Amino acid sequence: MQYPKPLGKMIGELSKLPGIGNKTAQRLAFHILSMPQNESAELAESILEASRTMKYCSCCGNLTDSDPCAICSDKSRKQDVICVVESPQDVMAIERINDYHGLYHVLNGVISPRDGIGAEDINLRSLIVRLQENTDISEVIVATDPNIEGEATAMYIARLLKPSGIKVTRIAHGIPIGGDLELADEVTLQKALEGRTEL
Amino acid sequence: MQYPKPLGKMIGELSKLPGIGNKTAQRLAFHILSMPQNESAELAESILEASRTMKYCSCCGNLTDSDPCAICSDKSRKQDVICVVESPQDVMAIERINDYHGLYHVLNGVISPRDGIGAEDINLRSLIVRLQENTDISEVIVATDPNIEGEATAMYIARLLKPSGIKVTRIAHGIPIGGDLELADEVTLQKALEGRTEL
Repeated sequence: MQYPKPLGKMIGELSKLPGIGNKTAQRLAFHILSMPQNESAELAESILEASRTMKYCSCCGNLTDSDPCAICSDKSRKQDVICVVESPQDVMAIERINDYHGLYHVLNGVISPRDGIGAEDINLRSLIVRLQENTDISEVIVATDPNIEGEATAMYIARLLKPSGIKVTRIAHGIPIGGDLELADEVTLQKALEGRTEL
Repeated sequence: MQYPKPLGKMIGELSKLPGIGNKTAQRLAFHILSMPQNESAELAESILEASRTMKYCSCCGNLTDSDPCAICSDKSRKQDVICVVESPQDVMAIERINDYHGLYHVLNGVISPRDGIGAEDINLRSLIVRLQENTDISEVIVATDPNIEGEATAMYIARLLKPSGIKVTRIAHGIPIGGDLELADEVTLQKALEGRTEL
């Protein structure tokens, strides 16, 4: 016996989401059906509304419902530092520490030859244009993930900006706070030693 | 910094779903925003459509898009056995084994004094009516979950149907196939011994 068509359709759509297998999709679907109809409508509406109104900031590439985004148009932020990240989620992660008050540039991807993603496929050209148009920028912090693709992208950006003379920095790699030295992998430990600072 | 409003709203709605915490809701939301707009619309539409069209079968209480449901209106099924289950998911679980060809009755709940749920709060009265109207029924199989509430509900149904003279049976409890005897809990082991059958 098959699920009734509308239920089967909903389960199918839910199971397309990342980390949602068929079993979880079924559980979610039955839960949604048990909700009052106005609540399930609100869930559906929020998906439609967000998909319709959220777009990429034409300046920094972050996800936003206004263009330019809230960060780009906030003149109280430091206008001379740009932090380059891979995704809008990374912007939120850095914003949560409440310690960085500069601007961002969101690549919306990372250079990955293995996946056929080159420098022209990510939001990088607009960074160059931005740096050319805005001569106030004194530092570009590259905060891509510390993995092969993130490191390669960081190196690429550093080389690309070299002629401009703008200072390009990379976030530190090392043992995470609360982490365990003996459980750290070799590369992390090596980076932690290399990046040691005087006390 | 807060999420832009439409994104925050979607994350909020998603995190109301069972097993979806704030982090997972964020991940799902960003994934939905990365989908082509027609695909996210299809997800939203499937939720609206299912919530609008799915209802409970007036005969057996199963979730269905037609009334009576596909099982109740399938005359090729055995019309003299009713299997009582807690939820529509249980119907699907039994249907998957492709071995039971009788009818169902879905309680959509279980008697649980602790949660203030009594016999009149679940879809039980309609079972009595159904048995009175349909004198062909020769057996009622009670397949509620083997936990305190499920067992209590099973006992209640057995006592309720006693005067009618209809045979009431309970699904077997024991060691699951592929399970490990030494890891089974005491009650399961006890039930497995009690329910032993001759080889």
